[in-house]
Amino acid sequence: MTTAVSKELRREVLEANLRIPRAGLATLTWGNVSGVDRRAGVFVIKPSGVAYDVLSEEDLVVVSLSDGSVVEGHLRPSTDTETHRSLYLAFPSVGGVTHTHSAHAVAFAQARRPIPVLGTTHADTFNGPVPVTEALTPQQCATGYEYNTGQVIVDLLGRDDTRAREVPGALVAHHGPFTWGADATASLEHAIICEAVAEMALHTIALGAVEPPQHLLDRHFARKHGPDAYYGNPPSV
Amino acid sequence: MTTAVSKELRREVLEANLRIPRAGLATLTWGNVSGVDRRAGVFVIKPSGVAYDVLSEEDLVVVSLSDGSVVEGHLRPSTDTETHRSLYLAFPSVGGVTHTHSAHAVAFAQARRPIPVLGTTHADTFNGPVPVTEALTPQQCATGYEYNTGQVIVDLLGRDDTRAREVPGALVAHHGPFTWGADATASLEHAIICEAVAEMALHTIALGAVEPPQHLLDRHFARKHGPDAYYGNPPSV
Amino acid sequence: MTTAVSKELRREVLEANLRIPRAGLATLTWGNVSGVDRRAGVFVIKPSGVAYDVLSEEDLVVVSLSDGSVVEGHLRPSTDTETHRSLYLAFPSVGGVTHTHSAHAVAFAQARRPIPVLGTTHADTFNGPVPVTEALTPQQCATGYEYNTGQVIVDLLGRDDTRAREVPGALVAHHGPFTWGADATASLEHAIICEAVAEMALHTIALGAVEPPQHLLDRHFARKHGPDAYYGNPPSV
Amino acid sequence: MTTAVSKELRREVLEANLRIPRAGLATLTWGNVSGVDRRAGVFVIKPSGVAYDVLSEEDLVVVSLSDGSVVEGHLRPSTDTETHRSLYLAFPSVGGVTHTHSAHAVAFAQARRPIPVLGTTHADTFNGPVPVTEALTPQQCATGYEYNTGQVIVDLLGRDDTRAREVPGALVAHHGPFTWGADATASLEHAIICEAVAEMALHTIALGAVEPPQHLLDRHFARKHGPDAYYGNPPSV
Repeated sequence: MTTAVSKELRREVLEANLRIPRAGLATLTWGNVSGVDRRAGVFVIKPSGVAYDVLSEEDLVVVSLSDGSVVEGHLRPSTDTETHRSLYLAFPSVGGVTHTHSAHAVAFAQARRPIPVLGTTHADTFNGPVPVTEALTPQQCATGYEYNTGQVIVDLLGRDDTRAREVPGALVAHHGPFTWGADATASLEHAIICEAVAEMALHTIALGAVEPPQHLLDRHFARKHGPDAYYGNPPSV
Repeated sequence: MTTAVSKELRREVLEANLRIPRAGLATLTWGNVSGVDRRAGVFVIKPSGVAYDVLSEEDLVVVSLSDGSVVEGHLRPSTDTETHRSLYLAFPSVGGVTHTHSAHAVAFAQARRPIPVLGTTHADTFNGPVPVTEALTPQQCATGYEYNTGQVIVDLLGRDDTRAREVPGALVAHHGPFTWGADATASLEHAIICEAVAEMALHTIALGAVEPPQHLLDRHFARKHGPDAYYGNPPSV
Repeated sequence: MTTAVSKELRREVLEANLRIPRAGLATLTWGNVSGVDRRAGVFVIKPSGVAYDVLSEEDLVVVSLSDGSVVEGHLRPSTDTETHRSLYLAFPSVGGVTHTHSAHAVAFAQARRPIPVLGTTHADTFNGPVPVTEALTPQQCATGYEYNTGQVIVDLLGRDDTRAREVPGALVAHHGPFTWGADATASLEHAIICEAVAEMALHTIALGAVEPPQHLLDRHFARKHGPDAYYGNPPSV
Repeated sequence: MTTAVSKELRREVLEANLRIPRAGLATLTWGNVSGVDRRAGVFVIKPSGVAYDVLSEEDLVVVSLSDGSVVEGHLRPSTDTETHRSLYLAFPSVGGVTHTHSAHAVAFAQARRPIPVLGTTHADTFNGPVPVTEALTPQQCATGYEYNTGQVIVDLLGRDDTRAREVPGALVAHHGPFTWGADATASLEHAIICEAVAEMALHTIALGAVEPPQHLLDRHFARKHGPDAYYGNPPSV
């Protein structure tokens, strides 16, 4: 019997992980989603190296937010667990984190180029380019590598929670995209969008990219976010 | 009980919306199709932000053609509703409108390049390039943004219904493709074709595009459209 | 009751047509396969504009090889029927013909570049580049356009049946690929291969293509074709 | 009744072959996996030219490691059998071999460029670029062509088993990727990864590739391989 987190959180994290392959973001077992329960001081994450088609709620691992120890679970958590934890600790508004190796977002990470804002598809979700970190130093690689992978993202955003809400994702240099959101589902959807806008940007760059006017981008971000948002329907319906 | 539009129109609009993800044109809930009943003075459109796999006929929203108010439905209509409405008002022959963020068509929109006519695949449906609008001005973004998004398309085509029938689609700069047709199904199929020819054009440009002879293009458009068309079979069979 | 061709030929032609969308070669209803019965002097072909998911054996159309008239069927045959007929008449060894608008092969056709031989994947099936025709003249477009579309392929190959067997496909300029083979199934598989090698060639050109040594290509073509072929197993097993 | 190899090896080799089309690596029947039983002195391989959807355990062919003769099976083995055999003979640690014509890996092979190490996706599996062989000479093509195809790989790696474990794949010039691993499953997964990193590399090169720091690559290879590896979970769980 599992008790450390609610059945609902487990189910949401499982479902978000299973959407990784369905959305075409996964090769083999690459990619993981977590969701946090800040009151309980824990987050739930995919186990390391387990195939999506055999993954069950019982396989998920519950990890302590304060020290990264396994609180519940019979498997080792994702190798990226410490990266997730460092993002949760730095940004109070983050409720879920997703990491994938989706092909087009990785290409930008490998070229160490931010994903530029080229249109409304991007501006609907990211209020600015998806930025790319510096490469980790030999010291950052030698000790606490995965935690430091989160830290270069935190440094990139200036540990600014507002910015993390407005640009819910970043590329780690020569590695790939990490995205986050209010919950596990939102973080996964931001991963899907990150890959979609990366693909569009790659094709646009091939055709010759043109900078869009800022007032258009502002309009799109505002219509989906903030006090005057008017996109979508209440999730209860 | 719904009465504002026929069961057939609702079914057609639902089916056309469901073909968006099946045709690979959708990321998440992006993309929407509407169909009009001009005698009743209304059109039926997808609700905003609802996932395709839970979308039902009852969720569709019936909107007034004259003022954009919701005539029937328990959900908010697509944020793009006013764009659809402005196209219906400008072009009497339009019976259905589709909007997607399909990757290759968006790339042309983001590069602010029309999709050029490079072969018969294009000429079978579009009698000329798929044109791209000017970017909306700050004023057009500030008030009535979605309606104005339709208006820049209307301006681009010179409010010419014949041209709208011969080139049933356009790219909004830094946004994406809008297509239309005699009914919802036709508008959706033009969205599929717009994405297909955009992908082919992207690859052709990479290989070095060569302008095709006009007499070949004319031949193809004519064999599918107009008095001497000889493509296809009667839909009743 | 249908009697003009055998049940087996109808079944093969239907099955080959249904493989077009399954192999990812089709957008909407684009693409058609035919198979010939030379003793009966007829060929069986897809009807024009019918969706693959409702296509049945009864919908196929039987056409006279000598004059192109419909011998059997309640639907209009594919608009490309005359192109198929002209290829059957020119090349005695051809038993089946396929036409698609697959994206990468069309890109080469639109750029009016042959698909170059860059490796063994290509050389296993095509003993040389997949050639591209001249654009049709105004005269060729004005009268008998579809038949002339076949004729520019026939001219390209010098009406040489041996060459047609060694290079079972060609690109019509600004249009797309036509492939053929000993039967309908072989022509469809050549269409699949034509698209696969076009995609590989596009990527290779982006990376900088290098000409392969002729002795390697000869080896591959020879191991699948001709008296010393040793690829595959008897189809009866 | 089959007795030359265990039921488990047959099942694993069948399953690995069936994953080729599911992973999107196959066109038609292209691609094959084998697995070896070194104590029995034989390996099990896909028959030549048989479609994946009708392939059964009984169709697999058991081949002698020492002389390449068929030990068991009613079909002719894959034409690439001798290439597999030469890899087994040269590298004692290899337990499975996979060959595909996946599009992006083939593009690098056709451009005769190694797949460069551009990030952690690559470094997790390949400790260095995926190298490309010299083109086979006329002599190597004339006699024992398939065995020589393996030999150019063996030569490329300096017949070094440690290197074969650290870089479990290579591209044969103008042909395509061969990958290997501790068993058939591992070799197939290396084929999947080889194609994934080739696609990412192609996109990265289009954006302008940047060399990653060696300490980052070392970190990633080490965390999945060798004495201090900490990725994954025991397969028994």
